[in-house]
Amino acid sequence: MFRTHTCGEIRIADVNKEITLAGWVQTVRKFGSITFVDLRDRYGITQLLFSESLNTELEANPLGREFVLQVTGTVNERSNKNTNIPTGEIELLVSKFSILNKSATPPFTIQDDTDGGDDLRMKYRFLDLRRNAVKKNLELRYAVGRSTRNYLHENNFMDIETPFLIKSTPEGARDFVVPSRMNPGQFYALPQSPQTFKQLLMVSGYDRYYQIVKCFRDEDLRADRQPEFTQIDCEMCFVEQEDILQMFEGLVKRIFKDVKNIDYADIIERMTWQDAMWTYGNDKPDIRYEMKLANLKFPAHTFPHQADISSLITGVDFKVFDEAETVIAIAAPGCSEYTRKQTDELTEWVKRPQIGMKGLVFIKCNADGTFKSSVDKFYPPEKLKAIAEAASAKPGDLVLILAGAEEKTRKATSDLRLHLGQLLGLRKPAEFKLLWVLDFPLFEYAEEDNRWVARHHPFTSPKPSDIATMIDNNPAIENAAEYLKHPYAGIKANAYDMVLNGNEIGGGSIRIYQRDLQEKMFAALGMDKEEQQHKFGFLLGAFEYGAPPHGGIAFGFDRLCSIIGGSEGIRDFIAFPKNNSGRDMMIDAPGAIDDKQFDELQIRLDLKD
Amino acid sequence: MFRTHTCGEIRIADVNKEITLAGWVQTVRKFGSITFVDLRDRYGITQLLFSESLNTELEANPLGREFVLQVTGTVNERSNKNTNIPTGEIELLVSKFSILNKSATPPFTIQDDTDGGDDLRMKYRFLDLRRNAVKKNLELRYAVGRSTRNYLHENNFMDIETPFLIKSTPEGARDFVVPSRMNPGQFYALPQSPQTFKQLLMVSGYDRYYQIVKCFRDEDLRADRQPEFTQIDCEMCFVEQEDILQMFEGLVKRIFKDVKNIDYADIIERMTWQDAMWTYGNDKPDIRYEMKLANLKFPAHTFPHQADISSLITGVDFKVFDEAETVIAIAAPGCSEYTRKQTDELTEWVKRPQIGMKGLVFIKCNADGTFKSSVDKFYPPEKLKAIAEAASAKPGDLVLILAGAEEKTRKATSDLRLHLGQLLGLRKPAEFKLLWVLDFPLFEYAEEDNRWVARHHPFTSPKPSDIATMIDNNPAIENAAEYLKHPYAGIKANAYDMVLNGNEIGGGSIRIYQRDLQEKMFAALGMDKEEQQHKFGFLLGAFEYGAPPHGGIAFGFDRLCSIIGGSEGIRDFIAFPKNNSGRDMMIDAPGAIDDKQFDELQIRLDLKD
Repeated sequence: MFRTHTCGEIRIADVNKEITLAGWVQTVRKFGSITFVDLRDRYGITQLLFSESLNTELEANPLGREFVLQVTGTVNERSNKNTNIPTGEIELLVSKFSILNKSATPPFTIQDDTDGGDDLRMKYRFLDLRRNAVKKNLELRYAVGRSTRNYLHENNFMDIETPFLIKSTPEGARDFVVPSRMNPGQFYALPQSPQTFKQLLMVSGYDRYYQIVKCFRDEDLRADRQPEFTQIDCEMCFVEQEDILQMFEGLVKRIFKDVKNIDYADIIERMTWQDAMWTYGNDKPDIRYEMKLANLKFPAHTFPHQADISSLITGVDFKVFDEAETVIAIAAPGCSEYTRKQTDELTEWVKRPQIGMKGLVFIKCNADGTFKSSVDKFYPPEKLKAIAEAASAKPGDLVLILAGAEEKTRKATSDLRLHLGQLLGLRKPAEFKLLWVLDFPLFEYAEEDNRWVARHHPFTSPKPSDIATMIDNNPAIENAAEYLKHPYAGIKANAYDMVLNGNEIGGGSIRIYQRDLQEKMFAALGMDKEEQQHKFGFLLGAFEYGAPPHGGIAFGFDRLCSIIGGSEGIRDFIAFPKNNSGRDMMIDAPGAIDDKQFDELQIRLDLKD
Repeated sequence: MFRTHTCGEIRIADVNKEITLAGWVQTVRKFGSITFVDLRDRYGITQLLFSESLNTELEANPLGREFVLQVTGTVNERSNKNTNIPTGEIELLVSKFSILNKSATPPFTIQDDTDGGDDLRMKYRFLDLRRNAVKKNLELRYAVGRSTRNYLHENNFMDIETPFLIKSTPEGARDFVVPSRMNPGQFYALPQSPQTFKQLLMVSGYDRYYQIVKCFRDEDLRADRQPEFTQIDCEMCFVEQEDILQMFEGLVKRIFKDVKNIDYADIIERMTWQDAMWTYGNDKPDIRYEMKLANLKFPAHTFPHQADISSLITGVDFKVFDEAETVIAIAAPGCSEYTRKQTDELTEWVKRPQIGMKGLVFIKCNADGTFKSSVDKFYPPEKLKAIAEAASAKPGDLVLILAGAEEKTRKATSDLRLHLGQLLGLRKPAEFKLLWVLDFPLFEYAEEDNRWVARHHPFTSPKPSDIATMIDNNPAIENAAEYLKHPYAGIKANAYDMVLNGNEIGGGSIRIYQRDLQEKMFAALGMDKEEQQHKFGFLLGAFEYGAPPHGGIAFGFDRLCSIIGGSEGIRDFIAFPKNNSGRDMMIDAPGAIDDKQFDELQIRLDLKD
């Protein structure tokens, strides 16, 4: 060992002990004839004191930032104590030192507020990882992982590894593929998730399975998507939805306790997908704040059980609302005194191409109970008041109204709500609010192909009450314009998402375990018998040998960690992330391979111009 | 939940309770008007008793092997107790039952002694996994993993994930590669190990890293090699070899304790590579038994510090020994009365092509102190006695002598020793004997290319005393026949292997952390500056910014589990293994990919005829 102690553990009780430390030079400060050095390692920082007697040696071997140093000396009580760090009461009076390795000047400072830009930090990731801010994130990640493993172990889950070299069965996302040298012309695929394997483990009777496992999707990357990502992947036998919800509420609460020392005592709210869309315009609402949607007008088929309050806005010949399919209001709390500039900015915001609305209608709910609106000439004060009340606006609030096509308007209102939440400081990073979203539709309509696709994945079971509807009807959509009237449109899935602060952190479902229902599902997705057999014959086969009822869930580990860490950026919670082109800037991957490799794999490039 | 209890937990104290179980039908036995069913789940087996009153219902819904069943009933004390299983004192008197899923007749029996052949078991792996024998292996694997994580956590190691999509830098084994759609013409590689990443984490100051991680090698498969395999991968900062040895002795002892309840109290033996080759002819000797090699004759350069005892066998004009480069004897305990047929069988065994020796010389050390040999006409009794003594043979033993070229003869003697160990029952699966093999040569001579290759890998440091030899000499070998006289041949590595019962279960080294020495190492392996920069520029760069002394180890997790499980076959310790062609027989992977995938990846097949 190059050390007797770490740089984080020496305390006042150790005074007069002779110890040896090893670490990195954080700072060097000369005061007259003495030199102070802050020596850093993973565990902390210890102040070193080089007295005058070492000056000759220090001049011969000057120290620089990030040098690797081994020092031996005696622990002294500091005269000038630093109460901000655990080792702040002591310093090490150095008797001898040895430079274990030198360092060139780092391209950016190794500090919380670094001067390094993203690209530089990615290229020199091994230096970026030295920064305390990044280290804390990786420590949190490790703590979340450990807490997860402990909880699942105590609940009889077994960690079972599933294979990485599997078969390509693209459903939805694109697979990464791996040419097989031993089987020329054939390819493995990297798993998008261990879905079918974990289901087979349930068929095999393993009862409770988990894995913290890498998954791969070859999709065009947005910020905060990585081609390889990590899942907490779980599956249970002989369970119904309620069992899964309770088990994994327990997991997340345990993580909060272990990692953040938060006792999450609130009952975790549950909301149907319909209600989430109705109330927040979003299937992963951030419920840390209210600002609920007032659905002033909407197409009859979208929310069949909701009351029509469109009379609030009709009858005044305001064409924008009269001609819109959907009109939705929200109330921004305390914003009634927004200036023209501020309301103009909001209007510009909703007109951005990503949002794509034509404009925004305002009602200022003045503190004195009066109303002032951009549509005063159409709506008399009583009407404005009624609309404001529908939006639960209080005096001092600003009601914002969007109008247009249903899907676009609903999404725009949700986006505006999140934007305002951010603007008004309502989305507090240190506040955590969990939510289950339930009863998702089983199918989604794919317009391009005029067919049904699985909203979750093809292994999700319909609600028991919907099985007959699924079996008894034909999936073919005869009139594309009226797809919502097709019986499949109303089938609900036994699926659930866990939402934390407006982010989907996990999702799962109770699975199909009957061969005939699974075949019907594949058929509904347009797979003929041959394709079913080729892609999923092993699973259909397994369902013939005593498949138990089962279900599970998967959490996005990278995102879960980042949100618990109070950030929405996942990259700084991954030791070696890739950039938006899927490139590892540090090792410069991907890269070329050589002719021998092409030759052995029996493939070649076929580059387009 | 479909159950109130599992099939493994009901005891005599639960008598009269009403409970619900769910599981698989193991057996159905009818005795007159009553039916007994053994219901199985992961946790155990509970006997169900269907009384006469359920006969009509049972006839309408007959039960079969592997059916999934839910039953409710009352716990009864059994009249005919089964003391072999924990639930053997009770049975469940069924009041109602429901068949949750039927099963076709399994293609083989779900029992320890199954009638299924290997191929059938691999194809129906989801059924094979139900067998208790396989389940026990996976449970042991989980226990080894958990014990490992706990020990490493307690010793300040952090689990940090490293990337799977990296760059191809083939050194030794072949990489699996992954075409990048987003970077046409470029490829990722799957990691053969996280070696460079874990070293970068040390440069980043993470101090103690571990990961239980999948690794990939595209090599021709022998029995018990898998294209994807799992490593316990560890690295530590500021350590010397002794620190690593102690830390990981602790790990393996902890695993023995946690998993097998074995207190491994013996001091773990340490042996240099030279001594292992001298004494056992093998760098991973099984030291559960003696049968040490008596090196009667050997080339002077191979073991320069060992005494020459060839006078024992020379001077009698026995050409076979006189002309051989190497002559080695071992004593098979208690085999002096082997029949002609038995000694012939041993002779045939060493003449097999895999061993390739020309014959075998015997000396029977009779119980009465006399000797009888196949070379009596050359060697007088005193000479036979002296040879037998050199081989530590006792009266009743059989001395076996092999002669031929050095490497071949040494390996053959080692193989013969292992063969006899097996034959004589000396390799007891329940006995565990650990060994460190130390001081490996840093380089190996690659005859085809007349150059040095790294015996361990290019990141292993030479012994400090050998650094000067390495720096001061040129790696080029001018006279291939005399490569052993080249100064590089004598350089020892700071490398160590952990051996358990004759299997290498782990290996590692203290790493190079100085840029100039690393460059010298790459150059020694024939890499010019440009290639060094292209392949490992990031690592050389990292060594310029304060790289600490560091070292580590990796354990082969699959093999470790199999040996602790008392088996040398790794497949049954992997949930979904591949066969010798790298094929997953169950999902039938690898497989074809479709034109769209080729098109998107901009590659095509280039199959040889």
